[in-house]
Amino acid sequence: MEHDGFVVRPVGRVESSLTDRADAPRQGDEGAPQAWLVFDERVAPALADLRPGDRVLLLTWLHRADRDVLAVHPRGDRARPRTGVFSTRAPDRPNPIGLHGAEILAVEGLRVRVSGLEAIHGTPILDLKPVLGEADAR
Amino acid sequence: MEHDGFVVRPVGRVESSLTDRADAPRQGDEGAPQAWLVFDERVAPALADLRPGDRVLLLTWLHRADRDVLAVHPRGDRARPRTGVFSTRAPDRPNPIGLHGAEILAVEGLRVRVSGLEAIHGTPILDLKPVLGEADAR
Repeated sequence: MEHDGFVVRPVGRVESSLTDRADAPRQGDEGAPQAWLVFDERVAPALADLRPGDRVLLLTWLHRADRDVLAVHPRGDRARPRTGVFSTRAPDRPNPIGLHGAEILAVEGLRVRVSGLEAIHGTPILDLKPVLGEADAR
Repeated sequence: MEHDGFVVRPVGRVESSLTDRADAPRQGDEGAPQAWLVFDERVAPALADLRPGDRVLLLTWLHRADRDVLAVHPRGDRARPRTGVFSTRAPDRPNPIGLHGAEILAVEGLRVRVSGLEAIHGTPILDLKPVLGEADAR
């Protein structure tokens, strides 16, 4: 286990009008469309307290990524110097976990509607976390 | 692959004075100590551009977590109602990926010193991402 790693199991999928990585905005606040997060029945209790208006952090598995890439030209701009991926948000990286800020717009059973999301259709969902408020309100 | 999940492989480990989950603060801004992120040689190019003062998001694997838990009393307080884990930052969740905000204090080869980190000693590191600035500065 120590040497082989750990297994993440998707808890749902993104349903989006974005179907091609080349068409996707680079970040959710750069014109990304609304999308549905469609969760598996087995995790229903985990989403029972999600409400419209909640600010969340969505963790996904960027299943099209190249895990052998360690440095990139930021935002694909070859005029910018190659930069270590830990200093960029490039999807290509050793563990291609996507981190997306979004707001919940609606909850319909296992389906959660969110604001601007740059993840493409079919992207596996790993986790959803609340954005933390101030320490005294947790 | 679709049904079995995806394998994450640690790229390093946390070195911290925190050795017991029971002693760890619940969030990094609640009195957590400085810590070292110690990366594997194979990912050295990925961290080549990290600099003191950088604000980062550290993704870890919470290896002590119970992955079958779907609802918890927030912050372990039994006076608070049971809440779906996607509305909490509880470590127990289907994919126990930790998300920690921190500031880089020093970089010494494969060792990166960071501010307040609530992860315990030995926690596997999965990824490091920059905190995004405004859209026009990316």
